[in-house]
Amino acid sequence: MYNRAHFPPCYAGSSEEHAHMELIADAAITDVTGFTAGSVHAGIKKDGQSLDLCIIYSLVPATAAGVFTRNKVRAAPVTISEQRLKNGRCQAIVVNAGNANCCTGKRGHADAERMIDLTARKLGIDPSDVVVASTGVIGVHLPMDRVEPGIDSIVLRSDGGADAARAIMTTDTRSKMAGARLRIDGKTITIAGIAKGSGMIHPNMATMLGFLVTDAAVAPDYLRRLVGEAADESFNQMTVDGDTSTNDSLIVLANGQAGNRPIDSGHPAAATFKTALTAVAADLARAIARDGEGATKFIEMIVEGAVDAADARRAAKAVVSSSLVKTAVYGADPNWGRILCAMGYSGAQIEESKVDLRIGDVWLMRGGEIQAFDRDQGVSALGGPDVEIWANLNLGSGVGRAWGCDLTEGYIDINGRYTT
Amino acid sequence: MYNRAHFPPCYAGSSEEHAHMELIADAAITDVTGFTAGSVHAGIKKDGQSLDLCIIYSLVPATAAGVFTRNKVRAAPVTISEQRLKNGRCQAIVVNAGNANCCTGKRGHADAERMIDLTARKLGIDPSDVVVASTGVIGVHLPMDRVEPGIDSIVLRSDGGADAARAIMTTDTRSKMAGARLRIDGKTITIAGIAKGSGMIHPNMATMLGFLVTDAAVAPDYLRRLVGEAADESFNQMTVDGDTSTNDSLIVLANGQAGNRPIDSGHPAAATFKTALTAVAADLARAIARDGEGATKFIEMIVEGAVDAADARRAAKAVVSSSLVKTAVYGADPNWGRILCAMGYSGAQIEESKVDLRIGDVWLMRGGEIQAFDRDQGVSALGGPDVEIWANLNLGSGVGRAWGCDLTEGYIDINGRYTT
Repeated sequence: MYNRAHFPPCYAGSSEEHAHMELIADAAITDVTGFTAGSVHAGIKKDGQSLDLCIIYSLVPATAAGVFTRNKVRAAPVTISEQRLKNGRCQAIVVNAGNANCCTGKRGHADAERMIDLTARKLGIDPSDVVVASTGVIGVHLPMDRVEPGIDSIVLRSDGGADAARAIMTTDTRSKMAGARLRIDGKTITIAGIAKGSGMIHPNMATMLGFLVTDAAVAPDYLRRLVGEAADESFNQMTVDGDTSTNDSLIVLANGQAGNRPIDSGHPAAATFKTALTAVAADLARAIARDGEGATKFIEMIVEGAVDAADARRAAKAVVSSSLVKTAVYGADPNWGRILCAMGYSGAQIEESKVDLRIGDVWLMRGGEIQAFDRDQGVSALGGPDVEIWANLNLGSGVGRAWGCDLTEGYIDINGRYTT
Repeated sequence: MYNRAHFPPCYAGSSEEHAHMELIADAAITDVTGFTAGSVHAGIKKDGQSLDLCIIYSLVPATAAGVFTRNKVRAAPVTISEQRLKNGRCQAIVVNAGNANCCTGKRGHADAERMIDLTARKLGIDPSDVVVASTGVIGVHLPMDRVEPGIDSIVLRSDGGADAARAIMTTDTRSKMAGARLRIDGKTITIAGIAKGSGMIHPNMATMLGFLVTDAAVAPDYLRRLVGEAADESFNQMTVDGDTSTNDSLIVLANGQAGNRPIDSGHPAAATFKTALTAVAADLARAIARDGEGATKFIEMIVEGAVDAADARRAAKAVVSSSLVKTAVYGADPNWGRILCAMGYSGAQIEESKVDLRIGDVWLMRGGEIQAFDRDQGVSALGGPDVEIWANLNLGSGVGRAWGCDLTEGYIDINGRYTT
């Protein structure tokens, strides 16, 4: 399924590059050459039936890199996986949902190591090639009496990608999958990813997890750089509630099975590959924001004319993070001063007298002066399931986007009663 | 009314100092020698009856200082008042509620200047001795056809303090007043203040406004230092929703009518005066948190054992700012991992393996290890209108507090429909 509309302008390279790339909605990670996955219901989630444990496996050791939460309180699997990925290599990821294995002391650390060891033994690979991720409630020990037989019973399948996307869900109402296909060195390269939760810097209930796999060959150092840059333009620009999780993890595996010449910064297709990887990550980020706890509306904030791209992203993210903006969107209340207010405290450079602002097609401010608008049109611009807000700071050429959702009674209901 | 219990330990000096000080609940600013106030309903608020315009007046020019929002988008009255207070002198404050005069361009600036000029003319004082503050909706021009006759009709009264506290309210459900009395140089000194809204760094709907007056004589440079320090331990440690307003203003006037020797850093009672001023500010800050939009519970977070006081305040504030903590408190859900998570991303130094944590009397963690607790006791510790959370980071001697409220459906209802 070819969907060029998914490419936001700020990721777009030249049209020549795009000629070789297509986004694939709902791509499965097992659509990528050399990857299999398996999932089971181990009994970690309380509902008694949902998938809650999975393994993502590359038939050969893959080049690997990850970015992890900046929270100083970090779950055991985060500490361990970050350490293991330093060698730039990984062959399997074992993931559980329903328990974050965080604030669990020494026993939590031993439990995470045990998950790795059991997975390595099952697959007949070296434990140093396995990483682990967990998501769910904090401060409760993992039920290892269920996790251990669970790992043992997993069957890896060449069509197991969609199940893996479901197995990592917690309060998500929909699984999140995205992918892209492109040609490099005459070879077809596929990238696919799954994600859960609602945030990287600002995650949701407990955690954002993202796993991207590709059959491209990529140089380890370049992959490490790419994953950080892709996160900055995707997961780091998405928020549900402003809480930074203890477990956030984004891990990328590149197993080289497509047979291209390893991509590094000097490869002629480096920019195209980065664009595609970032586009897949951004697709997943938008899906997370759209599925934010209790959300009824998706919000995209576009900032142009900032002094640089980082400042544009900062301003855009402050807007989608603002409880006041989020509630105003929920109530379809065109109380647009809150948007300007949020950009003002974002840390981005802004001069009120230069700002242009609109919601959908309704102009609210030009050059810092209030524009008369029809209130019904303003309400209408906030009335649909997709709300677009646009600002030009008129200070430079920086462009950035951020994604979020409205704040509703549903969020309160879900989070006031999560462990109960 | 003597109320020692109001002094939080982190503000408390020696008991000898306290022997000369008492807090006065519901003190009026007009209880302070040489201050009068007057309020009217000018028609800026839409309800057709509430007081929405007031003047606070000192019979003689007072030493003055203020701290203002760090938002880069700032209302016209903020820019103007900050500039005017640079000379350290003020005799009158004119305040309106119902309209923030923010994002209102050049006309907004002219309107704020006009409020000052009208007030100065009415009082027969120099416009350079008048400051202005506004709170309410952003992005709408002030209805000057109502403000102008409103200012003209204000009658200053020696018992007008309680009305002034009401005139500055917006979505507040209760007016906020606090005061303290102490002896310095054999003279009785009174401090009293009023406040509205819900935040200084993290304010509410549109604005936190605070006005403190005292009959003490205080050296201008010392008052400037004091107001910043007092704000750091009071209004800056309180949050409702994490949005930093365009209009936040804290202004202190000291008119010297008590006849003490001007207080500066070398005065033997300097520490006592600072403790009293901070205590009054903290009383107002707690009252704002308690009256947060839609709040049903007041949350106090106490952090001990941080590397320093600033780090302790940082960690405490992150906890009361967390949407996940706030919803868990609302739902009386002892999901305590969220508390540790918030301290982890606060920026404060923290080592999980050293943390002690309890909610009320229920221990949750000691030295980073989970403590078994009775779930009913945990629910009960979160069940009342006042929730106290305590942590010891065991890294140093820094102590800090922060105040907030739960996040409820009521917040969403109020903020989804504010301008409508």
